[in-house]
Amino acid sequence: MGKLWGGRFAGATDALAHRFNASLPFDVQLYDEDITGSVAWALTLGGAGILTADEVATIIGGLEQVRAEFQGNTIVFDQADEDIHTVVERRLTELVGPVGGKLHTGRSRNDQVATDFRLWTMRAVDRLQGHLAALQRALLASARANLELPMPGYTHLQHAQPVTWGHWALSHFWPLARDAGRLAAARAAAAVLPLGSGALAGTPVAVDRQALAAGLGFAAASQNSLDAVADRDFALDFLYAAAVLGVHLSRLAEQLILFSSAEFGFAVLDDAYTTGSSLMPQKKNPDTLELARGKAGRLIGHLAGLLATLKGLPSAYDKDLQEDKEPLFDAAETLELALPVMAGVVGTLRLRPERMAAQLEPGLLATELADYLVRRGVPFRQAHELVGQAVQLAETRQVTLADLSLADMQTISEQFEAGALDVFDVAAALAGRQVMGGTAPQALQQQLAAAEAAVD
Amino acid sequence: MGKLWGGRFAGATDALAHRFNASLPFDVQLYDEDITGSVAWALTLGGAGILTADEVATIIGGLEQVRAEFQGNTIVFDQADEDIHTVVERRLTELVGPVGGKLHTGRSRNDQVATDFRLWTMRAVDRLQGHLAALQRALLASARANLELPMPGYTHLQHAQPVTWGHWALSHFWPLARDAGRLAAARAAAAVLPLGSGALAGTPVAVDRQALAAGLGFAAASQNSLDAVADRDFALDFLYAAAVLGVHLSRLAEQLILFSSAEFGFAVLDDAYTTGSSLMPQKKNPDTLELARGKAGRLIGHLAGLLATLKGLPSAYDKDLQEDKEPLFDAAETLELALPVMAGVVGTLRLRPERMAAQLEPGLLATELADYLVRRGVPFRQAHELVGQAVQLAETRQVTLADLSLADMQTISEQFEAGALDVFDVAAALAGRQVMGGTAPQALQQQLAAAEAAVD
Amino acid sequence: MGKLWGGRFAGATDALAHRFNASLPFDVQLYDEDITGSVAWALTLGGAGILTADEVATIIGGLEQVRAEFQGNTIVFDQADEDIHTVVERRLTELVGPVGGKLHTGRSRNDQVATDFRLWTMRAVDRLQGHLAALQRALLASARANLELPMPGYTHLQHAQPVTWGHWALSHFWPLARDAGRLAAARAAAAVLPLGSGALAGTPVAVDRQALAAGLGFAAASQNSLDAVADRDFALDFLYAAAVLGVHLSRLAEQLILFSSAEFGFAVLDDAYTTGSSLMPQKKNPDTLELARGKAGRLIGHLAGLLATLKGLPSAYDKDLQEDKEPLFDAAETLELALPVMAGVVGTLRLRPERMAAQLEPGLLATELADYLVRRGVPFRQAHELVGQAVQLAETRQVTLADLSLADMQTISEQFEAGALDVFDVAAALAGRQVMGGTAPQALQQQLAAAEAAVD
Amino acid sequence: MGKLWGGRFAGATDALAHRFNASLPFDVQLYDEDITGSVAWALTLGGAGILTADEVATIIGGLEQVRAEFQGNTIVFDQADEDIHTVVERRLTELVGPVGGKLHTGRSRNDQVATDFRLWTMRAVDRLQGHLAALQRALLASARANLELPMPGYTHLQHAQPVTWGHWALSHFWPLARDAGRLAAARAAAAVLPLGSGALAGTPVAVDRQALAAGLGFAAASQNSLDAVADRDFALDFLYAAAVLGVHLSRLAEQLILFSSAEFGFAVLDDAYTTGSSLMPQKKNPDTLELARGKAGRLIGHLAGLLATLKGLPSAYDKDLQEDKEPLFDAAETLELALPVMAGVVGTLRLRPERMAAQLEPGLLATELADYLVRRGVPFRQAHELVGQAVQLAETRQVTLADLSLADMQTISEQFEAGALDVFDVAAALAGRQVMGGTAPQALQQQLAAAEAAVD
Repeated sequence: MGKLWGGRFAGATDALAHRFNASLPFDVQLYDEDITGSVAWALTLGGAGILTADEVATIIGGLEQVRAEFQGNTIVFDQADEDIHTVVERRLTELVGPVGGKLHTGRSRNDQVATDFRLWTMRAVDRLQGHLAALQRALLASARANLELPMPGYTHLQHAQPVTWGHWALSHFWPLARDAGRLAAARAAAAVLPLGSGALAGTPVAVDRQALAAGLGFAAASQNSLDAVADRDFALDFLYAAAVLGVHLSRLAEQLILFSSAEFGFAVLDDAYTTGSSLMPQKKNPDTLELARGKAGRLIGHLAGLLATLKGLPSAYDKDLQEDKEPLFDAAETLELALPVMAGVVGTLRLRPERMAAQLEPGLLATELADYLVRRGVPFRQAHELVGQAVQLAETRQVTLADLSLADMQTISEQFEAGALDVFDVAAALAGRQVMGGTAPQALQQQLAAAEAAVD
Repeated sequence: MGKLWGGRFAGATDALAHRFNASLPFDVQLYDEDITGSVAWALTLGGAGILTADEVATIIGGLEQVRAEFQGNTIVFDQADEDIHTVVERRLTELVGPVGGKLHTGRSRNDQVATDFRLWTMRAVDRLQGHLAALQRALLASARANLELPMPGYTHLQHAQPVTWGHWALSHFWPLARDAGRLAAARAAAAVLPLGSGALAGTPVAVDRQALAAGLGFAAASQNSLDAVADRDFALDFLYAAAVLGVHLSRLAEQLILFSSAEFGFAVLDDAYTTGSSLMPQKKNPDTLELARGKAGRLIGHLAGLLATLKGLPSAYDKDLQEDKEPLFDAAETLELALPVMAGVVGTLRLRPERMAAQLEPGLLATELADYLVRRGVPFRQAHELVGQAVQLAETRQVTLADLSLADMQTISEQFEAGALDVFDVAAALAGRQVMGGTAPQALQQQLAAAEAAVD
Repeated sequence: MGKLWGGRFAGATDALAHRFNASLPFDVQLYDEDITGSVAWALTLGGAGILTADEVATIIGGLEQVRAEFQGNTIVFDQADEDIHTVVERRLTELVGPVGGKLHTGRSRNDQVATDFRLWTMRAVDRLQGHLAALQRALLASARANLELPMPGYTHLQHAQPVTWGHWALSHFWPLARDAGRLAAARAAAAVLPLGSGALAGTPVAVDRQALAAGLGFAAASQNSLDAVADRDFALDFLYAAAVLGVHLSRLAEQLILFSSAEFGFAVLDDAYTTGSSLMPQKKNPDTLELARGKAGRLIGHLAGLLATLKGLPSAYDKDLQEDKEPLFDAAETLELALPVMAGVVGTLRLRPERMAAQLEPGLLATELADYLVRRGVPFRQAHELVGQAVQLAETRQVTLADLSLADMQTISEQFEAGALDVFDVAAALAGRQVMGGTAPQALQQQLAAAEAAVD
Repeated sequence: MGKLWGGRFAGATDALAHRFNASLPFDVQLYDEDITGSVAWALTLGGAGILTADEVATIIGGLEQVRAEFQGNTIVFDQADEDIHTVVERRLTELVGPVGGKLHTGRSRNDQVATDFRLWTMRAVDRLQGHLAALQRALLASARANLELPMPGYTHLQHAQPVTWGHWALSHFWPLARDAGRLAAARAAAAVLPLGSGALAGTPVAVDRQALAAGLGFAAASQNSLDAVADRDFALDFLYAAAVLGVHLSRLAEQLILFSSAEFGFAVLDDAYTTGSSLMPQKKNPDTLELARGKAGRLIGHLAGLLATLKGLPSAYDKDLQEDKEPLFDAAETLELALPVMAGVVGTLRLRPERMAAQLEPGLLATELADYLVRRGVPFRQAHELVGQAVQLAETRQVTLADLSLADMQTISEQFEAGALDVFDVAAALAGRQVMGGTAPQALQQQLAAAEAAVD
């Protein structure tokens, strides 16, 4: 034995075609889910009177023995095994005899593999949620410890306005909170049981599919047997959540790569998360961050690839669907490493406040000067124009905005008076943005509290 | 005037660079959202004491006049207008004078454009949900009218087991129900207000952002000003929902293209949804279905493209984010045509039950024959093997499985007895799958009811 | 030992970070290229007087011993080995002592890995070209054997005009010929030697890089050391060629899946390239074709992914580039199976001319009827309209176009005369298209000869 | 009139379906190519004796009048016009009467549109090659003017070894040279004439297709009529070339964005290529560079999208192929702006050598110190380790590597002697890499000469 379907075939499968078709090299990862699903199906067949109680006990005993062989790494594969389902049923039958051949009654690999794979996806999400929360907590700890530490804020990678390290760290917390939501949606999409749909038309076995779903930890049973064997939306949802999470990690990584360059110098990566050069002895490279950034590409590719595979497929199960597993396995594995590594990077980062302070030049406060004019009744658009002229004057003289004298400013507008020179105060600028989501200390405290609540 | 930012610049913008930067050719679509957001902001500035009641009234009056000019198509663009925000503020100031220059106090285009675009996305989802439900209802109507009409079911595009047209039509209903969920998730992601985040650090204006959010129809205000101006997750969520919906339409289209081929002939498309050939006078081509199938590629591309654009971007607002709009505008426009066209195709489809019946050959019932053996105690795996041999025998003789005599079958196994010949009954096969999601009449009725409940 | 760069580091690498960084699990595939490149580099160092002749001999002897260990599968990895380069240098030094530490003089992993990977790409292209030509020959053989066998031609999957099986088979030959060109372009892009570029700035070793290139089988040496370590265009070129080839295979597969359906029935797949169902005993599924179709998605994803990874990377070598290898390894492996499997499918296909003939209905010849009118002086546009009316008339009467009488036709136009009824002749229609690329026997013979010349 | 195919249809096209099908909104861009192709076809029909000389003259005269109406922007569209081919034929017939209806003899829109689109692609490549060469020349000019200007070289965005501005600028020249090759390959792929392939089976008109090809500027005529109407490889080739070019621009843009940040400060962008902030008066943002970077995503998306659209399509022409045009039109337009804008940015860039010099710290010369030890007989691997320890010592003391005394170094190894302190010389380090592609003055001159030859 070795195939589940040989009867009607006169000729043997071509050896290369067998390798091309075989999914065992990767779907072996589903062994635990496959056995769990088969145990539930054996009980179902028992409940429907198709298996006797003894047969059920024999089959379940055999299945658990197969599981133990997998766990103990003693399972032996046969050259003819084409997928994990074949291995489990073949080995079961070797162990318990022909009664093993009764297990597949009223079931097809089409509903079986969809069940296994959904169960795997649900478990993968659970693991990733833990890793994601750990990274969020690392960002929270960094934010809490440096909530009011001033640093330059950037737009277009140009100095914009002062922010704080805590504010910055939290700005990378919230995207991850949204990622948790997308992962949860993927899990909910997976938690719909296809088992009982047969190959495409439903099973003739009398089975309460909603009870079966509940028993296996699914939230519901599928509504339509054709859709149940063809639906891979949950796999797309998982890959999509992974791709967006990957993009978020890439943005965090990009920032930390910049911040740990010689030119920025805002942060020093711990040796534990850097590597050296085979040629240049002085190098300490942010490889982990670069990989976190680069792997976003891989995750985007997996999503684009599966979407293309599914596009235009006709009804019910087509073998093209076998292409669903490798991208998910790889995406999960990628993130199960990237997330804890990023948490480690963030958790061991050494900040250099003096380098941040050195970049807090007066140009970052130009908007404060415009706001000063607004408080004196100048329409904002005009205030913006006048301060812009002051910036240009300072640049022409190769001095900072704060180096201009009041007389200099008054050559531009008489609206500038003595108080104008008082605006160049980073702490005041930060404190002035008390709005929800802003940089004032109390606003930051409220945001921190909201973030702590969100991750718990 | 024409730019919102000229003060600090000595040199003029290069003409090609101006065209390269300009977003007006596409973001003009946001005029209504931009004006609505500006009206709310004017009220906010009034509430904060920054504008007088008169100024608020003047500005709102001017904004409504600008809106009327857009609606009446009398708005005139200036060559220097680089985006919709510039147009609105420029025209406002032309209409109401320098007080118009006060509107932008405490606001940046960074929070403004994010607000406009989120509002647009929320409205686009609302439109698409209507079109989606209409297509679902067309499928429901087709299912209801042909709930028990037998047709061959396929896996691997090979005859598998009998199903019914109603079952098939519903198998394309449920993916759309999941699409409605994904669109709703995209809307929820969009419904978080960035306004009040300023350029990146929050606004110094004292504003109750949660009240502002509620007033504009948002569910909440954003928690972090840096994240608020950088977050485009909602745009990805929308493009993802669109891409999966596109893939679902492509699968439905593929099936209908097959079914309306000469070889299948199960359905005839209405003239209203077909076109002819410029060369071949007899042709009646399913162009609409082919476009619905092909446009899945476009939607996949938009998603892959924006993910790549966002990957690796540093902090807060970068101009790269301007690339977010065109794919969404195009995705929405594509689906706003594709969905009603598909609803029209389904709603006007003429079925040909006789062509379906002609394909209901006995091979489709081979599983019934195996189940017959199972009922006689043969383990399923062995029953499958025996029936496979019968299939091979029939094929060798170039007859159908039902043409084999009992004697023929008994050369394969003595387990075949007289009752074996009774299994070749399509109606019985359909009726035998009474499980939830199966093909039996009652199961179909229950599924239909569930679908009707889901779309209402 | 185990790392090539530990000196300047006080702390150890985090264990997860080590796993995250490690490329050994996949770049072990480069062992042969790595050793070949190192042998050449040892000779180069000898030629430059940096190594003595004895040292060169010792190092090369050691390298060949390492190669033998890989080939004999006796190489032992160290937990600290992070990539294939580390393994080779570590093992070399274990075998030959400290002189092994001289091999990396003037070389960096940056130019080393690029050299290895380009060499691997050149070899992979050579293998794929062989497989591609074999598939082309299978199509040629099928075309030659059935050059004039009539079958319906389709556009929009609707009956269009008669073609022949040979014509159809050749229509899938030419895309593969273009693929061979794209693969050759990828090979040419790879065949530019980076070795001698050091980490980024060039090597201080006096080396004739063009001679080194020639010795390793490269066509040229790179022009700029910064570009040489950063350039992954050749990897993109390979993935692009693979993706387009994948799309071509998917189109061929789609057609053969259709042709082997019960409804078309034009061809029967050999048992060697089909599989069965675990549930339905009668099934014979075209799994190999469906996988060939589905794997186009994977190949598209690999390309989109690497493009996204490379987008926006700053100067010279970044660790993100390590993401280049897995997609290429997987793409090559995918095609090294898919191509011979498709060749096997095509080579063992059994045609059913009687099923093709059954579909050669008169509607396919409507254009001939229009051409008849054109020959009588009717402008083509008007002729098209008149024949269209005849088609409609036949459809209304539920007969074929050829069943209309001359009198029927003359109710539409008096231009129809007796000869009109003679146009319904498939052989004449085929023979009438004598143009280059057309369906006439002589045109087919010429095309066949051109195809044979192209593949040789 | 308005449709080219109405005869066999009883019902009218649904209005939304008409909009969904219509390609006129975008394929109007093909008017010139469509008319050029039609003129050639009229001559062909004349040569084949199907049109009289007078008819040919009348038709060509009419076509040129239609062209003039397009050029003069006086063409009027009809609501029923579905594509550019319909517009041209309709207007021709209005102008010249029923003889216009003879033009489409033996031609189909399938071969016609493929011809038009290939011609457009050839012309688009020609335009882009000009823009590409202009950007290359801008890089060459910058390289020539600053060939030996020292700057820090980076890998992993960390200081690595000294390079020069000229070397850096040339490192962005060579990728563009490869892009020119990819564009040329796309043009060659497009330059194969489909005209004469009819709808799918070839034309019955006796036409010398190779002469027709030559007359229209094509390099050859297609070999197989089925392939000719289905082949969109040239469109993929164009989109692929565009995507890689986009990635190259994104890498150049990323570098210039970094270099123009406050922290790097190596270069100042001209006002002509920057824009300001609506809120922050001091901002001068590198918007053009950010767009050039971001638009790589759009180009990647177009490629991924069309690959997905083509995947799995059956034989010959399917309407899905209509999706080929918009991505190419958009890709060409994107690059026709991005390339000259980038050339302008590079051409007007103001360098700040003093800021580069400030970053040329001794750590960049650590490899020189290792090479010093190698020259004294220390195996490179050991030398690397010893210098690494020196780096760590300097870091512990918070001094630069050059600040260590000889005595300090000798605590690490006695191999350090007086000459060790001489290695900290940037000019010497640059001059020491005389290899092809290296940083020595003569190597740079040779590279510059090679680059100048490559672009001419």
